[in-house]
Amino acid sequence: MLLHLSTWPEVEDYLTRSQAIIFPIGSTEQHGPTGLIGTDAICAEIVAKGVGTATQALVGPTINVGMALHHTAFPGSVSLRPSTLIALLQDYVKPLARAGFTRFYLINGHGGNVATVKAAFSEIYAALADSQVPNADRVRCRLANWYQCSTVYQLAKDLYGAQEGSHATPSEVALTQYAYPEAIRQATLDPQVAPAGHPIYGATDFRRAYPDGRMGSNPDLATPEQGQQFYERAVKELSSDYLKFIGDE
Amino acid sequence: MLLHLSTWPEVEDYLTRSQAIIFPIGSTEQHGPTGLIGTDAICAEIVAKGVGTATQALVGPTINVGMALHHTAFPGSVSLRPSTLIALLQDYVKPLARAGFTRFYLINGHGGNVATVKAAFSEIYAALADSQVPNADRVRCRLANWYQCSTVYQLAKDLYGAQEGSHATPSEVALTQYAYPEAIRQATLDPQVAPAGHPIYGATDFRRAYPDGRMGSNPDLATPEQGQQFYERAVKELSSDYLKFIGDE
Amino acid sequence: MLLHLSTWPEVEDYLTRSQAIIFPIGSTEQHGPTGLIGTDAICAEIVAKGVGTATQALVGPTINVGMALHHTAFPGSVSLRPSTLIALLQDYVKPLARAGFTRFYLINGHGGNVATVKAAFSEIYAALADSQVPNADRVRCRLANWYQCSTVYQLAKDLYGAQEGSHATPSEVALTQYAYPEAIRQATLDPQVAPAGHPIYGATDFRRAYPDGRMGSNPDLATPEQGQQFYERAVKELSSDYLKFIGDE
Amino acid sequence: MLLHLSTWPEVEDYLTRSQAIIFPIGSTEQHGPTGLIGTDAICAEIVAKGVGTATQALVGPTINVGMALHHTAFPGSVSLRPSTLIALLQDYVKPLARAGFTRFYLINGHGGNVATVKAAFSEIYAALADSQVPNADRVRCRLANWYQCSTVYQLAKDLYGAQEGSHATPSEVALTQYAYPEAIRQATLDPQVAPAGHPIYGATDFRRAYPDGRMGSNPDLATPEQGQQFYERAVKELSSDYLKFIGDE
Amino acid sequence: MLLHLSTWPEVEDYLTRSQAIIFPIGSTEQHGPTGLIGTDAICAEIVAKGVGTATQALVGPTINVGMALHHTAFPGSVSLRPSTLIALLQDYVKPLARAGFTRFYLINGHGGNVATVKAAFSEIYAALADSQVPNADRVRCRLANWYQCSTVYQLAKDLYGAQEGSHATPSEVALTQYAYPEAIRQATLDPQVAPAGHPIYGATDFRRAYPDGRMGSNPDLATPEQGQQFYERAVKELSSDYLKFIGDE
Amino acid sequence: MLLHLSTWPEVEDYLTRSQAIIFPIGSTEQHGPTGLIGTDAICAEIVAKGVGTATQALVGPTINVGMALHHTAFPGSVSLRPSTLIALLQDYVKPLARAGFTRFYLINGHGGNVATVKAAFSEIYAALADSQVPNADRVRCRLANWYQCSTVYQLAKDLYGAQEGSHATPSEVALTQYAYPEAIRQATLDPQVAPAGHPIYGATDFRRAYPDGRMGSNPDLATPEQGQQFYERAVKELSSDYLKFIGDE
Ligand code: NI
Ligand code: NI
Ligand code: NI
Ligand code: NI
Ligand code: NI
Ligand code: NI
Repeated sequence: MLLHLSTWPEVEDYLTRSQAIIFPIGSTEQHGPTGLIGTDAICAEIVAKGVGTATQALVGPTINVGMALHHTAFPGSVSLRPSTLIALLQDYVKPLARAGFTRFYLINGHGGNVATVKAAFSEIYAALADSQVPNADRVRCRLANWYQCSTVYQLAKDLYGAQEGSHATPSEVALTQYAYPEAIRQATLDPQVAPAGHPIYGATDFRRAYPDGRMGSNPDLATPEQGQQFYERAVKELSSDYLKFIGDE
Repeated sequence: MLLHLSTWPEVEDYLTRSQAIIFPIGSTEQHGPTGLIGTDAICAEIVAKGVGTATQALVGPTINVGMALHHTAFPGSVSLRPSTLIALLQDYVKPLARAGFTRFYLINGHGGNVATVKAAFSEIYAALADSQVPNADRVRCRLANWYQCSTVYQLAKDLYGAQEGSHATPSEVALTQYAYPEAIRQATLDPQVAPAGHPIYGATDFRRAYPDGRMGSNPDLATPEQGQQFYERAVKELSSDYLKFIGDE
Repeated sequence: MLLHLSTWPEVEDYLTRSQAIIFPIGSTEQHGPTGLIGTDAICAEIVAKGVGTATQALVGPTINVGMALHHTAFPGSVSLRPSTLIALLQDYVKPLARAGFTRFYLINGHGGNVATVKAAFSEIYAALADSQVPNADRVRCRLANWYQCSTVYQLAKDLYGAQEGSHATPSEVALTQYAYPEAIRQATLDPQVAPAGHPIYGATDFRRAYPDGRMGSNPDLATPEQGQQFYERAVKELSSDYLKFIGDE
Repeated sequence: MLLHLSTWPEVEDYLTRSQAIIFPIGSTEQHGPTGLIGTDAICAEIVAKGVGTATQALVGPTINVGMALHHTAFPGSVSLRPSTLIALLQDYVKPLARAGFTRFYLINGHGGNVATVKAAFSEIYAALADSQVPNADRVRCRLANWYQCSTVYQLAKDLYGAQEGSHATPSEVALTQYAYPEAIRQATLDPQVAPAGHPIYGATDFRRAYPDGRMGSNPDLATPEQGQQFYERAVKELSSDYLKFIGDE
Repeated sequence: MLLHLSTWPEVEDYLTRSQAIIFPIGSTEQHGPTGLIGTDAICAEIVAKGVGTATQALVGPTINVGMALHHTAFPGSVSLRPSTLIALLQDYVKPLARAGFTRFYLINGHGGNVATVKAAFSEIYAALADSQVPNADRVRCRLANWYQCSTVYQLAKDLYGAQEGSHATPSEVALTQYAYPEAIRQATLDPQVAPAGHPIYGATDFRRAYPDGRMGSNPDLATPEQGQQFYERAVKELSSDYLKFIGDE
Repeated sequence: MLLHLSTWPEVEDYLTRSQAIIFPIGSTEQHGPTGLIGTDAICAEIVAKGVGTATQALVGPTINVGMALHHTAFPGSVSLRPSTLIALLQDYVKPLARAGFTRFYLINGHGGNVATVKAAFSEIYAALADSQVPNADRVRCRLANWYQCSTVYQLAKDLYGAQEGSHATPSEVALTQYAYPEAIRQATLDPQVAPAGHPIYGATDFRRAYPDGRMGSNPDLATPEQGQQFYERAVKELSSDYLKFIGDE
């Protein structure tokens, strides 16, 4: 059930059955010579929709732009500052909490979002209490990274070994190929496997260390069929995780 | 050309041809008993994609949540505070301006966004100058409301007359029916034509004045075929407007 | 009744009769070679005082500096950022709302304020609710632009036709001449009628397009006598609008 | 020379002679049963205009609302939060500094503003440097409290002794009587001399300690003639201080 | 009783006896060629611990970095912006106020903190009220500058006369020598007594006026024995002040 | 070399040898019935000083209050909001970066800080670039959690097994016992090993799940001698990590 394709009476009705909502959160950032700029959002969105279908959960619109400041030396990358993303998430949660939602499940496609989203959760709980939102103390938020599902991680390891890397990975590229087969890109990767090991600091430093944007990966290994496998595993594992999250007292 | 389905080298290449980008901006808010919560985002997105195709423009990801605080007394509505939306838009523009983009064209589906987005533009120009972004003084932003295209407006008037209303209108509902025919909703509208004339203040006041969320409209009049007409007119008119915007010295 | 020339027991007494207050809001910005930098504040203030007298309304002190970032490439212009103006208006309203005021009527002299002030209203309603201000849901804010009164608009059209322009207009200059006849300025206007048609972007761009600061206007046409006419029309029309605003359920 | 009654070319011309500007800053707050709510703004404004005339200085519009949160339990009081006032002052200074102003002289009528304004000055210097404003390191701000002029202080002591008190004082009331003789108020003061000695904390606490709003004062002692004396002394002393401020290397 | 060396049940128990807490606040800033960068924090901390022992008060951890933007042109200086320090103090007070603390006593070692801390107090009282913190109207904050104790001031005058100066003073250096005798520094001071009289503006201006960082002082006069005298006087006087503060109705 | 016990010329001299600085960051939060409220700050500080000695690094003052909002339902806990901590860290880094520091190494004692500090790093890099800080693109920040050193982790596992838990752990308690043997606390722990497994949400929820504040731990196992072992291992491992960090190109 997609929030954007629902009416408010349907949401009102949904609230009598469940007080949980899923939001996909991605990023708009370079993903190397062949990875799509929307990779992280695309992956989060397709997985979230799958989880929504599997669990009858309400799925909100995708947060398309996340925290990707370190990618902004490559054209086409967009990013919120962490403090903006914190404000945004607080704004998302507050009216929904007032409406009766108490469980917020974010399905995430981008490692760079993790720290800020977790920081935001803390700020949100305190803000809800300060604003005297009823049931503020019952609100719970959870961040679930599809790429860190154990079954996903294992498959990536089996398929790509060390060439999975950590950005513009074959696993996420495969998933976008499954989602948008018409948008599969080819380009010469030089070197075939991108350099790795340099920590992430600022945008200029990032581009110096990772000239084509990839980190340790060889996305040429990706296929849409593998993407489907990742999709199915992620949906299965996160559906289970979601149900556990909303079932907890 | 969709930013999310492009790679950064493609964007780099695009920048040699054009320094303009389109962002659809909508809202996540109640649209009466039959209108979809995502109506404004859906409309902005489909029109923006059409304009992108018609003009070979780059189209960024949809800003799905806008300024809809006055709708938040209805479940399912989400909103940024104006100050958050201003911060968000500043964050969107800054890295793209550093990358060389100078024209930002926002296609908007929600009247409630207009004031904040225009305020944001002012804040952005000053922030770019303060941050010494090269070409800061060449950056231009423009907000284009699809529903205010003269040809759209005329068609709505011809088709619906006063029953167009101003929120959950048959024209926007028609456009969503064209975009998502599988999501067409039926419900008894009571009264058939919603009350009108009460100005917009806070959320509780809004719901008191507009108990089912509609403002002066009769969305029952909408059909997907009309939606297509709205789509074609909006795309045509905004394509022309966009080309003029990027062609101006 | 001017707030600044009243005592708190008088305000306490006033609150038993009315819960409304008027604030003039202007700007501090260039108005071409002969227009006063305070034009917008002067106009808003004199009209607001007139409305206050006509309606027995309480009138607060003038907000002298508004949102005029696009004028700041001309010396003497001052501006709040939109986010600052939003914070300011929120701070104005909150203690007055706690004291019992529920209707805030802003008489505005500057087009550049409109977007930010409207955005601020939305932020205010939500902030009052978050702060548990009693009667938060009864608070209403309204922005009234004196220069958009229909009778004012008509008179400007009759007197000046297209030479009214849109900034440093003869109508606003006339009103300042009526208010401060000792401050009437003369200067050669070259061209006599300023250029027009360039949209407003950032400050540097504005000055490139409008080298002497005027937009499409010929303020030489202004006379203090016309200013009086504008004054009387604006006061009459806004008094009526104010009474309607405070009378609405 | 009043900024609001000047044109931008006049300001441009002024900048060739002086790079200094004066801003009056007051407050909008209760001043006891007979003191005007605008007392602090009225006093700052009249003194600032006098100093402007005496020194040929440019005088900006009055900052009518200051930091008066502790007065907000009395109806009619308005206040900025300190963080808002800091943002406001930063916004005032930045465009003027870009235009060439380097000396900002604030004439203040309200003790409650002092801490925040001084904090703002520190934030401003750093913000100008961060924004690469030319001559940022030459910008200087100074706060001058008219009521702390030594000649003013001495006169108040001579005239009123301990009945001067510290809020709604006879000296400031006298100055407003001189400025607005038509607005002189009479009321029974009970006790004649207000209680004193309780430090200032929050708004509710303030009203508990000072039930009619006065602090230690007997404003009944004030006369317009005394007000004129205060005016003349303040103008003379601050004119001298201003000239020293702008003359310093 | 040090908060950092206590457990929460001990704090719970303490709250049955007292609702007051002391926080030392200092700065991290240059103190001339021989003064320690931590001088202001060291002084505030040692005095606060002494007061805590003398009065059985709970003493929180030292706020080591304060508002020292004007010192930041010397390497090693660190500073919060005023708006950050305001936010920080608000964050400190809010959870403690919710836990039952109503008296916050800040022992300060740095003149540059005074304005911002006082501004923060105002913002805090309003924020507590907005957040509906129980007993918000009973919360009181007080700033006590150890160096302004009358007995301290007198001793400094007796020992050093005009060579006390106003920054990197022999009195504060002496106190740090008493606290950390192993960190006593020697260096040639040239001139022996630093220049004085230039007001504080921005960081670059400060360093131009005060090339080695001292203001009017001759810290060579300091001895650890004098430091002990300052310590004892400050502790005695502030203990008395603290007890009065918490004893007031 | 401690920043607080150094002079600015010593820092200037240090900068010719190294451009790195260490900051300990802890928290002020409940640590169960026997753990000290300052545990995280104490641990971070003592380890940081040890690393500073071992590597000749400059060590700044301890950030005593971190992000501990979820602990604030226990008296004595204090916390910054994430957005405040982000602002604070930005303020710390900016003047030091202007002075020439390029490597910022934070030694952390509190898991709750991790997300916010990492988010802050991203915001800092962008802010430095926006402010045109020279060498902004050379600035690098690193967060090192002493409790996650592999040798520390192994020792805790060997000594305590599952009774290490995740808050108020015997390892951190042991380290504080080593640092402050005079502050060792005894209390009946009931149950001996605290409950575990409930994720961290808001403060009220946390206290419901963890009534005495501990998470899965049995701090009774701690001894000062073990604390010394943890200390030595952490210092050794982080010294090595620090040297690698500053040695990297
Ligand atoms: Ni990715
Ligand atoms: Ni709509
Ligand atoms: Ni105007
Ligand atoms: Ni006053
Ligand atoms: Ni000092
Ligand atoms: Ni801990």
